[in-house]
Amino acid sequence: MNIPFTKMQALGNSYVYVDGRHIQLDERHLSPLAQAVSSVRTGIGSDGLILITSSQQADVKMRIFNADGSEAKNCGNGLRCVAKYAFEKGLVSDTRFQIETLGGIVEAHVHVRNGKVEQVTINMGKPRLAQKEIPLTSGGEETAIDYPLEVDGQRLYFTGVSLGNPHAVIFVDDVASAPVTTLGPKIEKHPLFPEGVNVEFISVRSSHDIDFRVWERGSGQTYACGTGACAAVVASALKEKVKKGEPVTVHLQGGDLEIVWDNDEHVWMTGPAEYVCEGTYFWPNGSKAQNR
Amino acid sequence: MNIPFTKMQALGNSYVYVDGRHIQLDERHLSPLAQAVSSVRTGIGSDGLILITSSQQADVKMRIFNADGSEAKNCGNGLRCVAKYAFEKGLVSDTRFQIETLGGIVEAHVHVRNGKVEQVTINMGKPRLAQKEIPLTSGGEETAIDYPLEVDGQRLYFTGVSLGNPHAVIFVDDVASAPVTTLGPKIEKHPLFPEGVNVEFISVRSSHDIDFRVWERGSGQTYACGTGACAAVVASALKEKVKKGEPVTVHLQGGDLEIVWDNDEHVWMTGPAEYVCEGTYFWPNGSKAQNR
Repeated sequence: MNIPFTKMQALGNSYVYVDGRHIQLDERHLSPLAQAVSSVRTGIGSDGLILITSSQQADVKMRIFNADGSEAKNCGNGLRCVAKYAFEKGLVSDTRFQIETLGGIVEAHVHVRNGKVEQVTINMGKPRLAQKEIPLTSGGEETAIDYPLEVDGQRLYFTGVSLGNPHAVIFVDDVASAPVTTLGPKIEKHPLFPEGVNVEFISVRSSHDIDFRVWERGSGQTYACGTGACAAVVASALKEKVKKGEPVTVHLQGGDLEIVWDNDEHVWMTGPAEYVCEGTYFWPNGSKAQNR
Repeated sequence: MNIPFTKMQALGNSYVYVDGRHIQLDERHLSPLAQAVSSVRTGIGSDGLILITSSQQADVKMRIFNADGSEAKNCGNGLRCVAKYAFEKGLVSDTRFQIETLGGIVEAHVHVRNGKVEQVTINMGKPRLAQKEIPLTSGGEETAIDYPLEVDGQRLYFTGVSLGNPHAVIFVDDVASAPVTTLGPKIEKHPLFPEGVNVEFISVRSSHDIDFRVWERGSGQTYACGTGACAAVVASALKEKVKKGEPVTVHLQGGDLEIVWDNDEHVWMTGPAEYVCEGTYFWPNGSKAQNR
């Protein structure tokens, strides 16, 4: 079975994109196809598959399948790629449009020069700060700013932020020496976080620059986490290290994102998206999948 | 810079193939391009790049660049892919032909059904068995069959075989429980092997079947090592567990290879090769590389 595809990446987070205009895939094909394309050994190699189709509720619809075949709600890096693809490939004609995801409808804004999308801005929604919404097992309506945590006999302080997924932001002097891989996994699994947590170690270099490293729930250390960058700016604003309403550049290991937490409480993320390659994937089990 | 490419894999060993008929690349582009395409995060994702061109000395020429940009002499899995590509894409018309590599000229034989290459046989050359040719530091003309080795206070016995690269073959009862990742790295770096060594743990299931796991020098545990499979059959024949001149199926973690050590001392390897995808790679640093 031949599958037309485009591989795109944003800050090193890469997906294989399949355009529903070029091929119609059965529902039962999506999970095995995502697993097949994602393998760097026998497939193309990616973090998963994103299917782009028309939407009844928005201008375009995306569905994200992880490398293990499970369906994901949302992905900030994937959203920017979909926005670039949708505009440049003519699925939308306006520079502001809406993308339907399993996690809800998201607003996108592409920044165009000479017909090419150079940067994409995504409305990442309103952060939730109540302990029960992050969630923490401690559980009330109050926020968790500089909340104490005992790990490995050390006392740390984190600020809890949810952007649909839970984040524990820890301020450090120097991210290069932060205990990302040693304490990250222990904090992720700490009983205070009933759903686990993404752990960000950040250093506010100036009121417009934050250095950032992340331990992602379920993935370990990664080069970029869009929601984590948003959480970092929200936590920094709550502690008055950066200003609400002003853009802050978050320096992730995979590249930079510009984040604004606006005065209507929405968090806006602006960053790049790039094409890697385009062609045809020869799915060896495609006919087997068809006849299942 | 747009690069037409084909990704192929053989037993999970994957390369990006570039056909010199479709694009002419400067010598100085090859190493940075190999690094760029090999990254699964920002490139296509592969073990390296293989350039296929015409040859003055053989029917077709291949050059192999590892993911780190260094040039390799040879690769059994890559040779099978090149042979399939050369036949199916019309670079050669005979089913037997010669491939020029940095390690010398290699004979290939494609097995065709309905115009498609189903299996490829490669002449892997004559094994070298003298201790000084493997090489071992002990160094004479004598072979190293059931040669003793002290590792971690344990005494092991290996059979030494060179197929252009050094192999230490260790017979075990059950490869599933073999100490591949624990003793493998220690044997690789043991002072007995001045150039390091690939370590194969094998179990001869019958006179025509060998179970196989490998620790590759410089790469760690891998799914398939063509020269290692050849070394396994040579070592088994030396110990009269299999017969010279008869085909033996080696069951690697990535799939099966059929090996014959013929009565002229040549080792023949037969196995699959598959297309993964085909298209255009958009090399972001291509124009930079051009102007360097």
